[in-house]
Amino acid sequence: MDTTFSYQSLYNFTYAIFKHIGCDDTDATTATKALLAADVRGIDSHGVARLSGYVRLWEAGRINSQPNISIKHETLSTAVIDGDAGLGLVVAPYAMQMAIDKAEKVGTGWVSVCNSNHFGIAGYHAMMALEKDMIGIAMTNASALVAPTFSIERMLGTNPIAVAIPAGKEPAFVADFATTTAANGKLEILQRKNAAAPPGWVQDKDGNASTNANALKANGALLPLGSDREHGSHKGYALGSIVDIFSAVLSGASYGPWAPPFPAYVPMPENMPGKGLGHFFGAMRIDAFRPADEFKHHMDNWIRRFKNAKPASGYDKVLIPGDPEREMEAIRMREGIPVVESVVNDLNAVAAKFGLQLKQSQ
Amino acid sequence: MDTTFSYQSLYNFTYAIFKHIGCDDTDATTATKALLAADVRGIDSHGVARLSGYVRLWEAGRINSQPNISIKHETLSTAVIDGDAGLGLVVAPYAMQMAIDKAEKVGTGWVSVCNSNHFGIAGYHAMMALEKDMIGIAMTNASALVAPTFSIERMLGTNPIAVAIPAGKEPAFVADFATTTAANGKLEILQRKNAAAPPGWVQDKDGNASTNANALKANGALLPLGSDREHGSHKGYALGSIVDIFSAVLSGASYGPWAPPFPAYVPMPENMPGKGLGHFFGAMRIDAFRPADEFKHHMDNWIRRFKNAKPASGYDKVLIPGDPEREMEAIRMREGIPVVESVVNDLNAVAAKFGLQLKQSQ
Repeated sequence: MDTTFSYQSLYNFTYAIFKHIGCDDTDATTATKALLAADVRGIDSHGVARLSGYVRLWEAGRINSQPNISIKHETLSTAVIDGDAGLGLVVAPYAMQMAIDKAEKVGTGWVSVCNSNHFGIAGYHAMMALEKDMIGIAMTNASALVAPTFSIERMLGTNPIAVAIPAGKEPAFVADFATTTAANGKLEILQRKNAAAPPGWVQDKDGNASTNANALKANGALLPLGSDREHGSHKGYALGSIVDIFSAVLSGASYGPWAPPFPAYVPMPENMPGKGLGHFFGAMRIDAFRPADEFKHHMDNWIRRFKNAKPASGYDKVLIPGDPEREMEAIRMREGIPVVESVVNDLNAVAAKFGLQLKQSQ
Repeated sequence: MDTTFSYQSLYNFTYAIFKHIGCDDTDATTATKALLAADVRGIDSHGVARLSGYVRLWEAGRINSQPNISIKHETLSTAVIDGDAGLGLVVAPYAMQMAIDKAEKVGTGWVSVCNSNHFGIAGYHAMMALEKDMIGIAMTNASALVAPTFSIERMLGTNPIAVAIPAGKEPAFVADFATTTAANGKLEILQRKNAAAPPGWVQDKDGNASTNANALKANGALLPLGSDREHGSHKGYALGSIVDIFSAVLSGASYGPWAPPFPAYVPMPENMPGKGLGHFFGAMRIDAFRPADEFKHHMDNWIRRFKNAKPASGYDKVLIPGDPEREMEAIRMREGIPVVESVVNDLNAVAAKFGLQLKQSQ
């Protein structure tokens, strides 16, 4: 059974948790907004479902709630930032803002980040650029769950890419996707239901195609976007690799199979070649290319033309990337956010430990 | 039956063709090198197989062999270039060089191009950055063959993305892939053999899954990377859309279903919203992020670790993006380039018309 919470009640609770682990007011606000963007937009695997995980990482000393974020190197259009083991939810907006500031000055800004942690949904950070009439880009590496084409070893995370592009009268184009066939969150839903996974999502420990949603727990692996060689898995593997290299090799974070694991009980990899998790952010000012009004007029035209593409039988219309999440946001801000029982129990356990209370409405 | 040609003989012939249609020496050299990079690297669909197509576009007045390439707008890190309907094979290296020059100065350079034509393989342009210790990025839109998820209408081209990343002692990482499940060139090979296509590559005119390699000729469509919704085709559709928007909406080229067709006999779309085909190029100086030697040391480590990932049974090893093309290049530069009979006939027809001769070795 799901329990429905108002945005405000989840906000107050999450904020209190971040305060409790030592964040100052500003960082707690930043982190809460970033985290809840996932719940609001319907990406339930990346929102409050992760909150107790962050707390456990803090307890294990892997998250520093009072980071001294520093610039390791910069040029007019680039920077590398050391997140000082801070919450990714705090480090990422800081880095994205720096990319935006650089774009204000020289047209584009590109920031690679090391020594960070899980940053919530990539799309939230990319979307920071929209109100400045900029294109926003965000990506991150993550702990290894994905086997490259022809391999049985987990070498890459689900390494998502988000690209947010402003439009005029139409809502913005916001793509935000894992570079795997299916996000791990979707697999977790099937695991809870004890349901089979569609073919092409996972392989077993020997590299055979599998429909067992629990294959990952038995040393199997998620598959790169494309599923197998014949369907382009080498492209998904390349995309995930590019995210890993831009986020971690460029910044000095830990990459590939050495990316730090999210669960605090999993020991850190040995011989890590860099510090913490890595992210990569970009901002491109539209009017560094053509007048923003002109661009947005054409984006409206692009979006309308695609929305009106002939649908296949059985489908209403073609979706524009970002449409489902925006529609979900409208519903959930109005009607509340349903949270599954296991997550509610998890949050209540953290609440009890910290002497806090999780309320349904506020 | 294939006929094998030496690189030099194809070079001389291609150069003579470009000279014949009016290119000056410099442009003919640039275009020849860019075109033949495809044949040498094993991407047979994009090399001399396209040469007669370029000639027909020139005959139809759609390619200007003496373009006045101009800068429409620029900032320190960006530019928009008008290719003046030149060969993409000439316009693209010009634009990529400009991205590299900007990266020299401010860390990164980003150039969007309108009013261009087919530019050969994306990887060739991205690789221009490697010798400067930069990461190179190249993409292009193309005439619409791909139906977005839930649609039966062709709205996007195969819109490739290439990313070239320098390494130290190991060869560079070079990803270069169409944002579809299968490149159109692979489908053409099956068509010539009258063979079936694997499920997931194409759909028929009603949007049904199809294994008919000729489905495109009967108003079917190529499928975005991921094949169907359950396997992430909305991600491939988003990637193809991002390429379209960066290449064409940002530059003022014609986008989506209005992208100009490659075959000269296909009429231009009505009400084109921009000029010609669009490309997008990026260059990021490694040492704008961290010292190049340090980065290359870690890229070597990344590449070796991935090469040594446990292979699945029946496979030797994990490939690094760019490996197969580099191995092919070594073979073909040594042993010659096989060209299929239909392409040889095509080239001989152009030769006869222009009073030139196609020789096997030179």
